[in-house]
Amino acid sequence: MTENKAPYEMQQPPEEESLTHAVGTPSPVEVDEETHPADAAEHIERLGVEEQVKFVKQLPIKDAADSIAEMDRHEQQSLFQNLNYGFAAKILEQMAPDDATDILEGLDEEHRKGLLRRVKAKERAELRNLLTFHPDSAGGAMNTEVVILDQSLTVDQAITKMRDEVEDKEIPYYAYLVDSAGRLTGVVSLRDMLVARHGKLLRELVKAQNLVSVTYDTDREEVARLIGHYNLLAMPVLDFGDRMLGVVTVDDVIDIIQEEASEDMQAMVGAGADETTDSPVLYSVKKRLPWLILNVMNSAVSAFVVHLFQGTIAQMAVLAVLMPIVANQAGNTGQQALAVMIRQLAMERFDRKRSWLAVLREMRIGMINGFFICALVWGAVLGLTQHFMLANVMTAALAIDICFGAFAGAAIPLVLREIGRDPAQASSIFLTAITDSLGFFTLLGLAVLVLF
Amino acid sequence: MTENKAPYEMQQPPEEESLTHAVGTPSPVEVDEETHPADAAEHIERLGVEEQVKFVKQLPIKDAADSIAEMDRHEQQSLFQNLNYGFAAKILEQMAPDDATDILEGLDEEHRKGLLRRVKAKERAELRNLLTFHPDSAGGAMNTEVVILDQSLTVDQAITKMRDEVEDKEIPYYAYLVDSAGRLTGVVSLRDMLVARHGKLLRELVKAQNLVSVTYDTDREEVARLIGHYNLLAMPVLDFGDRMLGVVTVDDVIDIIQEEASEDMQAMVGAGADETTDSPVLYSVKKRLPWLILNVMNSAVSAFVVHLFQGTIAQMAVLAVLMPIVANQAGNTGQQALAVMIRQLAMERFDRKRSWLAVLREMRIGMINGFFICALVWGAVLGLTQHFMLANVMTAALAIDICFGAFAGAAIPLVLREIGRDPAQASSIFLTAITDSLGFFTLLGLAVLVLF
Repeated sequence: MTENKAPYEMQQPPEEESLTHAVGTPSPVEVDEETHPADAAEHIERLGVEEQVKFVKQLPIKDAADSIAEMDRHEQQSLFQNLNYGFAAKILEQMAPDDATDILEGLDEEHRKGLLRRVKAKERAELRNLLTFHPDSAGGAMNTEVVILDQSLTVDQAITKMRDEVEDKEIPYYAYLVDSAGRLTGVVSLRDMLVARHGKLLRELVKAQNLVSVTYDTDREEVARLIGHYNLLAMPVLDFGDRMLGVVTVDDVIDIIQEEASEDMQAMVGAGADETTDSPVLYSVKKRLPWLILNVMNSAVSAFVVHLFQGTIAQMAVLAVLMPIVANQAGNTGQQALAVMIRQLAMERFDRKRSWLAVLREMRIGMINGFFICALVWGAVLGLTQHFMLANVMTAALAIDICFGAFAGAAIPLVLREIGRDPAQASSIFLTAITDSLGFFTLLGLAVLVLF
Repeated sequence: MTENKAPYEMQQPPEEESLTHAVGTPSPVEVDEETHPADAAEHIERLGVEEQVKFVKQLPIKDAADSIAEMDRHEQQSLFQNLNYGFAAKILEQMAPDDATDILEGLDEEHRKGLLRRVKAKERAELRNLLTFHPDSAGGAMNTEVVILDQSLTVDQAITKMRDEVEDKEIPYYAYLVDSAGRLTGVVSLRDMLVARHGKLLRELVKAQNLVSVTYDTDREEVARLIGHYNLLAMPVLDFGDRMLGVVTVDDVIDIIQEEASEDMQAMVGAGADETTDSPVLYSVKKRLPWLILNVMNSAVSAFVVHLFQGTIAQMAVLAVLMPIVANQAGNTGQQALAVMIRQLAMERFDRKRSWLAVLREMRIGMINGFFICALVWGAVLGLTQHFMLANVMTAALAIDICFGAFAGAAIPLVLREIGRDPAQASSIFLTAITDSLGFFTLLGLAVLVLF
């Protein structure tokens, strides 16, 4: 970064090391052994791929693994495609198994197999096992480096055992207690072990209300929701025999929540769920174009509605002036309902009853807002055109379209979910198709009935 | 909940207590001492306000405080408005100070003052202090119950001290080391203390790269971003003299990220930032109506553009058929750019150079997608109308509007940020105003120039 400094900055004395200097803005110093892996990752991402390779090769292998683990997924993959198998395998061995699995999942099969063959037998078995889980499931997101203790140990025995083991474990704030068959029986926090009297048995420290867990096939979004709900630092993942497989940790949950929020917002308008401003242009084109084509076909439908009334418009061109107002207003009302519903579905599981209560709520809001908007528009159209019946027709069309827009905006995500799709996917595109077509049809249709 | 069971469910044998029974679906059992506070909160939220009061009063005071802390903000406030001062004050004393502050912030001033007067002196001073911070800042989100240790202690001394203190502390996975002036000098995890040899000094355990902190005035969204970036469980909050004030914990960060994601998505279309499907109808009306009125005024502008060309439309009504296609297509392209930009700004701080590179990227995507869409539309219009020049005019207008839509979608959040507004606020409404007006103007204007 130093080479980009403007001359007047070069002349300033070097800043004193300050407690907060690294926060907020990228650190002005070069990457060294005190650099946080997350910052090193940002540094690597800004290099060209050849320099990336050169840079990670000169790092100590553990630091290289930690930094690569923090990189953006697209960047990780392009880097791995340019590393030789031997070095790449060493990196994978050093990484937390869940991070290594994420990278392997992004590579094509041949590359993945070739790489796995170079990984040491113990780590290879672990990675092969993790690769069998769906990437969007608890199993696919879990970390297997957990502290598992026999519930019949005393606190002292447990602490001694942890001292020996904890060095390798990434998740050191809970210990998981199992019975002789490996079934999870309780969770104890490090904090509780530290405070307990030494002679106490681990199982005496367990609080029943702390035992929340998921099975490996649970959707990762649901895991994130539960961790948020119960304020946990890690969620145990079990097989169907209640045996402990691993944990999903809260730092992964933050990433999951951010990814899901991006997915919802972007899928709603037909952009790719995992697009960022760093995605390759052609990747974004490929993701978006199909939805834009769907949108063209949708607007062809509303255009066809207008086409049916061409004669009417030729006689009364002011209808073409009013058309966009109806469509726009109903569309906006619907989008407000849509946004609130999609966010709610992202944060909470809704049963049918609550879902339809929420639709009803949106329709109430739409009707009240619609009342004010209609009054405003009625006055404006009457004032500007001096045409009483035209103002009435416009207002009636607007009222109908706004109410239906509120209903559609709230209902579309529920319908999409009901048919097993992502509640957000292209929802805004469907909504616009509905409010446009209906708006044009009611305005022009009422005009034909009343004004001619 | 049991009373809602359908008859056929009543006849089934009671389910065996299973490890995973509480996960995903609300627990079928009544609320008792083993119920997690988060589940108790959900139970309370479903009661009417009178039953809520009755219910929390019969709980042990600590359980009541824990459960109320997990409730939705709107629900907390309506409950507090119905509790007598004496009981409410006891609840506040038992709560984590950051949660108590959140509740107090929602009450009107008189109520807040009356309540605070009933709170014990020590807790009152603490709460008054926390209330001075802006609710959207690190200070407003921080928890003050942290373990602060003198850096010159040995590990044994520290563990003994923590044993005495940790009972009251909510955040037990890090200890914060300070020098004699109270300035933060390092962070040590419980894990590292547990593994260290007993004679070691605390300051020897500190790793330089772990010292990340913020000042109390940092925006809470930035704190959330940094905690995610550095995978921390808690972020120390300092005053401008580097003295330790408290920490923002990762469970609060999850809430912050979810709230910010809702804010972005909802603000984009002019719904209230903090609306949920549980918000009162009139609250939502109040939040949304101003933006709908702005939207009406915006559509009045595009309607005015169409109005200028009424004569043209009367002569050639097919233009009114094509109008919505142009506007819609450019609008959708722009919304895709908008969604990706807003999410990126939510997750990362962008300097100007990266911002404009991202705009450029969106314009490239818009142009490539626009090329395909234009080819499709050109063929369709030519095929359906047999009017070569009309197809050309339509395609030219579409191309111009799509490119400008992509630019506007990417640029609007940046402009809003530049003028100090929320990058998402009403961005979709502004975008539609632009793509509609420009689309109508280019289509009808080009038609006048070329077709008549």
